[in-house]
Amino acid sequence: MYVSVSRLRVDPERSAELVAAFRRRASLVDSHAGFVDLQVWRSDRDPAEVLMVSRWLDRDSFTAYMKSADHRVSHGRIDRELKKAIKLERLEQLQTYEVVAE
Amino acid sequence: MYVSVSRLRVDPERSAELVAAFRRRASLVDSHAGFVDLQVWRSDRDPAEVLMVSRWLDRDSFTAYMKSADHRVSHGRIDRELKKAIKLERLEQLQTYEVVAE
Repeated sequence: MYVSVSRLRVDPERSAELVAAFRRRASLVDSHAGFVDLQVWRSDRDPAEVLMVSRWLDRDSFTAYMKSADHRVSHGRIDRELKKAIKLERLEQLQTYEVVAE
Repeated sequence: MYVSVSRLRVDPERSAELVAAFRRRASLVDSHAGFVDLQVWRSDRDPAEVLMVSRWLDRDSFTAYMKSADHRVSHGRIDRELKKAIKLERLEQLQTYEVVAE
Protein backbone atom coordinates (compact mmCIF):
# COMPACT_ATOMS: atom_id res chain seq x y z
CA MET A 1 0.00 0.00 0.00
CA TYR A 2 1.14 3.55 -0.74
CA VAL A 3 0.21 6.73 1.15
CA SER A 4 0.24 10.37 0.13
CA VAL A 5 0.05 13.07 2.81
CA SER A 6 -0.59 16.73 1.93
CA ARG A 7 0.19 18.92 4.91
CA LEU A 8 -1.74 22.20 4.85
CA ARG A 9 -1.55 25.15 7.17
CA VAL A 10 -4.60 27.33 7.25
CA ASP A 11 -5.60 30.37 9.27
CA PRO A 12 -7.30 28.72 12.32
CA GLU A 13 -10.36 30.92 11.74
CA ARG A 14 -10.79 29.28 8.32
CA SER A 15 -10.06 25.73 9.46
CA ALA A 16 -13.79 24.85 9.74
CA GLU A 17 -14.35 26.22 6.23
CA LEU A 18 -11.54 24.06 4.85
CA VAL A 19 -13.01 20.97 6.52
CA ALA A 20 -16.47 21.80 5.13
CA ALA A 21 -14.93 22.09 1.64
CA PHE A 22 -13.40 18.62 2.00
CA ARG A 23 -16.77 17.22 3.10
CA ARG A 24 -18.44 18.39 -0.08
CA ARG A 25 -15.53 17.32 -2.30
CA ALA A 26 -16.36 16.05 -5.77
CA SER A 27 -15.14 12.52 -4.94
CA LEU A 28 -13.65 12.22 -8.42
CA VAL A 29 -10.69 10.34 -6.95
CA ASP A 30 -12.85 7.54 -5.51
CA SER A 31 -13.35 5.77 -8.83
CA HIS A 32 -9.66 5.76 -9.84
CA ALA A 33 -7.92 2.41 -10.21
CA GLY A 34 -5.91 1.62 -7.11
CA PHE A 35 -7.59 4.20 -4.87
CA VAL A 36 -8.14 2.83 -1.34
CA ASP A 37 -9.44 5.71 0.78
CA LEU A 38 -9.01 9.36 1.76
CA GLN A 39 -9.25 10.99 5.18
CA VAL A 40 -8.73 14.54 6.41
CA TRP A 41 -6.99 14.82 9.76
CA ARG A 42 -6.91 17.98 11.89
CA SER A 43 -4.41 18.29 14.73
CA ASP A 44 -6.13 18.46 18.10
CA ARG A 45 -3.31 20.64 19.45
CA ASP A 46 -3.02 22.97 16.50
CA PRO A 47 -6.22 23.43 14.39
CA ALA A 48 -4.12 25.26 11.78
CA GLU A 49 -2.55 21.93 10.82
CA VAL A 50 -4.69 19.86 8.47
CA LEU A 51 -3.49 16.71 6.69
CA MET A 52 -5.11 15.20 3.63
CA VAL A 53 -4.21 11.50 3.68
CA SER A 54 -4.94 9.29 0.69
CA ARG A 55 -4.08 5.62 0.41
CA TRP A 56 -3.41 3.69 -2.78
CA LEU A 57 -2.71 0.11 -3.73
CA ASP A 58 0.73 1.14 -5.01
CA ARG A 59 2.83 4.10 -6.15
CA ASP A 60 1.86 3.69 -9.82
CA SER A 61 -1.86 4.12 -9.06
CA PHE A 62 -1.08 7.34 -7.18
CA THR A 63 1.14 8.85 -9.88
CA ALA A 64 -1.41 7.94 -12.59
CA TYR A 65 -4.08 9.86 -10.65
CA MET A 66 -1.79 12.85 -10.12
CA LYS A 67 -1.39 13.15 -13.90
CA SER A 68 -5.13 12.74 -14.57
CA ALA A 69 -7.67 15.34 -15.63
CA ASP A 70 -9.74 14.47 -12.52
CA HIS A 71 -6.92 15.66 -10.28
CA ARG A 72 -6.80 19.00 -12.08
CA VAL A 73 -10.59 19.33 -11.86
CA SER A 74 -10.55 18.59 -8.10
CA HIS A 75 -8.00 21.33 -7.49
CA GLY A 76 -9.88 23.71 -9.73
CA ARG A 77 -13.00 23.39 -7.56
CA ILE A 78 -11.33 24.81 -4.45
CA ASP A 79 -12.73 28.24 -3.61
CA ARG A 80 -10.31 30.97 -4.65
CA GLU A 81 -10.42 32.81 -1.32
CA LEU A 82 -9.87 29.59 0.63
CA LYS A 83 -6.94 28.71 -1.61
CA LYS A 84 -5.37 32.06 -0.77
CA ALA A 85 -5.88 31.48 2.98
CA ILE A 86 -4.04 28.16 2.70
CA LYS A 87 -1.21 29.49 0.57
CA LEU A 88 -0.61 32.53 2.72
CA GLU A 89 0.31 30.32 5.65
CA ARG A 90 2.72 27.95 3.97
CA LEU A 91 3.07 26.15 0.70
CA GLU A 92 1.37 22.80 0.57
CA GLN A 93 3.77 19.99 1.37
CA LEU A 94 3.39 16.57 -0.18
CA GLN A 95 4.97 13.54 1.48
CA THR A 96 4.66 9.94 0.34
CA TYR A 97 5.15 6.63 2.13
CA GLU A 98 5.19 2.90 1.55
CA VAL A 99 3.18 0.93 4.11
CA VAL A 100 5.84 -1.48 5.39
CA ALA A 101 4.02 -3.22 8.26
CA GLU A 102 0.55 -3.50 9.73
CA MET B 1 -12.05 8.62 14.56
CA TYR B 2 -8.78 9.63 16.24
CA VAL B 3 -5.25 9.15 14.91
CA SER B 4 -1.89 9.00 16.67
CA VAL B 5 1.31 9.41 14.63
CA SER B 6 4.73 8.64 16.09
CA ARG B 7 7.44 10.05 13.87
CA LEU B 8 10.73 8.17 14.23
CA ARG B 9 14.08 8.88 12.67
CA VAL B 10 16.39 5.93 12.44
CA ASP B 11 19.84 5.42 10.93
CA PRO B 12 18.93 4.37 7.31
CA GLU B 13 21.14 1.29 7.71
CA ARG B 14 18.87 0.15 10.53
CA SER B 15 15.59 1.05 8.86
CA ALA B 16 14.98 -2.54 7.66
CA GLU B 17 15.63 -3.81 11.18
CA LEU B 18 13.08 -1.39 12.63
CA VAL B 19 10.48 -2.50 10.08
CA ALA B 20 11.19 -6.17 10.89
CA ALA B 21 10.71 -5.40 14.59
CA PHE B 22 7.30 -3.86 13.84
CA ARG B 23 6.30 -6.93 11.82
CA ARG B 24 6.92 -9.21 14.77
CA ARG B 25 5.24 -6.85 17.24
CA ALA B 26 3.35 -8.40 20.13
CA SER B 27 0.00 -7.07 18.84
CA LEU B 28 -1.08 -6.34 22.42
CA VAL B 29 -2.78 -3.17 21.22
CA ASP B 30 -5.10 -5.02 18.81
CA SER B 31 -7.49 -6.19 21.51
CA HIS B 32 -7.89 -2.82 23.24
CA ALA B 33 -11.34 -1.23 23.23
CA GLY B 34 -11.62 1.37 20.50
CA PHE B 35 -8.52 0.22 18.56
CA VAL B 36 -9.12 0.42 14.78
CA ASP B 37 -5.79 -0.37 13.10
CA LEU B 38 -2.06 0.29 13.01
CA GLN B 39 0.24 0.79 10.04
CA VAL B 40 3.94 1.59 9.72
CA TRP B 41 4.81 4.01 6.92
CA ARG B 42 8.32 4.57 5.55
CA SER B 43 9.07 7.60 3.40
CA ASP B 44 10.00 6.62 -0.14
CA ARG B 45 12.25 9.68 -0.40
CA ASP B 46 13.93 9.36 2.98
CA PRO B 47 14.12 5.81 4.45
CA ALA B 48 15.26 7.33 7.75
CA GLU B 49 11.74 8.62 8.29
CA VAL B 50 9.35 6.02 9.68
CA LEU B 51 5.84 6.81 10.96
CA MET B 52 3.83 4.56 13.25
CA VAL B 53 0.18 5.42 12.60
CA SER B 54 -2.54 4.05 14.85
CA ARG B 55 -6.25 4.80 14.51
CA TRP B 56 -8.81 4.75 17.30
CA LEU B 57 -12.55 5.21 17.60
CA ASP B 58 -11.98 8.30 19.75
CA ARG B 59 -9.44 10.15 21.87
CA ASP B 60 -10.52 8.44 25.10
CA SER B 61 -9.74 4.95 23.73
CA PHE B 62 -6.26 6.14 22.76
CA THR B 63 -5.44 7.76 26.10
CA ALA B 64 -6.75 4.69 27.99
CA TYR B 65 -4.34 2.51 25.99
CA MET B 66 -1.43 4.90 26.57
CA LYS B 67 -1.93 4.50 30.32
CA SER B 68 -2.27 0.71 30.14
CA ALA B 69 0.18 -1.98 31.18
CA ASP B 70 0.09 -3.37 27.61
CA HIS B 71 1.54 -0.12 26.28
CA ARG B 72 4.45 -0.35 28.73
CA VAL B 73 5.02 -4.01 27.83
CA SER B 74 5.06 -3.19 24.08
CA HIS B 75 7.72 -0.54 24.59
CA GLY B 76 9.70 -2.83 26.87
CA ARG B 77 9.98 -5.41 24.08
CA ILE B 78 11.92 -3.11 21.74
CA ASP B 79 15.52 -4.27 21.36
CA ARG B 80 17.84 -2.10 23.42
CA GLU B 81 20.32 -1.49 20.59
CA LEU B 82 17.55 -0.58 18.16
CA LYS B 83 16.08 1.81 20.72
CA LYS B 84 19.43 3.55 20.94
CA ALA B 85 19.66 3.85 17.13
CA ILE B 86 16.27 5.55 17.08
CA LYS B 87 16.95 7.86 19.98
CA LEU B 88 20.33 8.97 18.68
CA GLU B 89 18.71 10.48 15.61
CA ARG B 90 15.92 12.43 17.23
CA LEU B 91 13.47 12.05 20.03
CA GLU B 92 10.28 10.32 19.08
CA GLN B 93 7.56 12.83 18.20
CA LEU B 94 3.94 12.08 18.90
CA GLN B 95 1.22 13.95 16.99
CA THR B 96 -2.50 13.37 17.26
CA TYR B 97 -5.41 14.19 14.95
CA GLU B 98 -9.18 14.06 14.74
CA VAL B 99 -10.48 12.61 11.47
CA VAL B 100 -12.72 15.46 10.27
CA ALA B 101 -13.72 14.27 6.81
CA GLU B 102 -13.51 11.18 4.62
